[in-house]
Amino acid sequence: MTSLKSSFNLNSKQGDIKIEVDLFMCLTFIGIGLTGMGLTIEGLKEAQNADFIFMDSYTSILPNGALNTLSSLIGKNIQPLKRADLEGRGLVKIIELAKRSKVALLVAGDPFIATTHISLKIEAAKAGIPVKYIPSASIQTVISGLTGLSNYKFGKSATIVFPDKGPNNAAYEAVRDNKSRGLHTLLYLDLEVEISRAMTINEGIKILLELESKRGEGVINSDMLVIGIARACWKDSIIKASKLSKILHYDFGPPPHVLIIPGSLHFIELEALRLFADMEDY
Amino acid sequence: MTSLKSSFNLNSKQGDIKIEVDLFMCLTFIGIGLTGMGLTIEGLKEAQNADFIFMDSYTSILPNGALNTLSSLIGKNIQPLKRADLEGRGLVKIIELAKRSKVALLVAGDPFIATTHISLKIEAAKAGIPVKYIPSASIQTVISGLTGLSNYKFGKSATIVFPDKGPNNAAYEAVRDNKSRGLHTLLYLDLEVEISRAMTINEGIKILLELESKRGEGVINSDMLVIGIARACWKDSIIKASKLSKILHYDFGPPPHVLIIPGSLHFIELEALRLFADMEDY
Repeated sequence: MTSLKSSFNLNSKQGDIKIEVDLFMCLTFIGIGLTGMGLTIEGLKEAQNADFIFMDSYTSILPNGALNTLSSLIGKNIQPLKRADLEGRGLVKIIELAKRSKVALLVAGDPFIATTHISLKIEAAKAGIPVKYIPSASIQTVISGLTGLSNYKFGKSATIVFPDKGPNNAAYEAVRDNKSRGLHTLLYLDLEVEISRAMTINEGIKILLELESKRGEGVINSDMLVIGIARACWKDSIIKASKLSKILHYDFGPPPHVLIIPGSLHFIELEALRLFADMEDY
Repeated sequence: MTSLKSSFNLNSKQGDIKIEVDLFMCLTFIGIGLTGMGLTIEGLKEAQNADFIFMDSYTSILPNGALNTLSSLIGKNIQPLKRADLEGRGLVKIIELAKRSKVALLVAGDPFIATTHISLKIEAAKAGIPVKYIPSASIQTVISGLTGLSNYKFGKSATIVFPDKGPNNAAYEAVRDNKSRGLHTLLYLDLEVEISRAMTINEGIKILLELESKRGEGVINSDMLVIGIARACWKDSIIKASKLSKILHYDFGPPPHVLIIPGSLHFIELEALRLFADMEDY
């Protein structure tokens, strides 16, 4: 293939370090938000400009029909990728393709909130491929918008994993350490799309209760306020704040779910929870 | 005015609680990301559907021309609002307008990452106005995408405020407490658009150094690694990781700026910083 060369600066402050790249060479990570309709104007342009458009179909769940809607919006075919397509040999293939064409990878939420895609970004950069990043809304951002909990008051987040994969001490300790500083904790719930299992809010709480009865550090109890969010930003989303014992049995419907354990609450946060998270008197 | 009534459910799980609303009544908060081109497909539709489109022009800085580009994209006039237009009497006026028309408010980044707009959301909900929220990328999200620092390892964030507005103990303590847990800290730098002042990374570091010499808790020192990000996601963005003494004198150009104080670093995070944040050997 004849290659048209172009040059770009590696970090704009170092005017002298120019890198020659093939004009057809590019890997663009494009966030599509929580519903697919979080594709941005910038992302749409980049996708339309790409030779190949892939979509990560294994790290998250999108509403039915999102792929088709996106495909008609962009006006091009979108190829869903499995985990194996983006790891090991799969990753090498994507890199090789991006060396001679413009490749776009659509990712639900923001492309780099989960750590999954950073390896691909690093390998592409090492191979001299220009990497672009088009951010979008992530669950981490929208929890403040949906609940009214102040973004400044969230501490470290963590994931509750399926118990057959290992203990959940990190999640328990994140809640414990955040609570001791009055901070809120976002708990992601394990999701394995390829084997069709997704942890529910109810299961997540059960795991936390079991950890509490094992460790006994007084972090989790039945009366504490927790907030469950199902299908954030989808048309049928549910946001429900109540005491843990009630949320444990609440039916949130299908995944994806996340769980928030609030720390100390400002009266404006309490007012927002009453209005936007169906919280009865607490 | 003749009003067409429509009803909607307050929280989808409570099918019986229906609220009657005027069909023309609506307040939609729309995130436009860090450049304005982070307006999403969903946000574009909502904006085009609105009777009045306002833009918060006082909590953040956008690239030149963003307002005009957005206005032609949406095909409607956008009215920039000052702080006074969204607080006190100004807020009442917006609420009154939303009671009889569809009002959209464009906000840089995500609408609810800063706490500024939650009061308006609460007042609208109390007035029975249906409130919609269209999220977009926020600085909190993109810092992981830009630097490769793991989102899971960020602790509480804080703002360094101009010293004439009060002491910065909260920022110092956020860094101290996060560091003691090995966590990264995102420090927002104060921005007062209406009086044209914006804190630079260099000023922010100077304030932290002064606090350290006053408090002496060993949190901040000249040799520690820090990361400055200027104009995140803009075409001329700068991302630079180096020791504090070097960043203190580094010219990042115009605002907006943010500062990251990393905690303990995984080798993949170090590799990402070398590739994407121009970090020399550290």
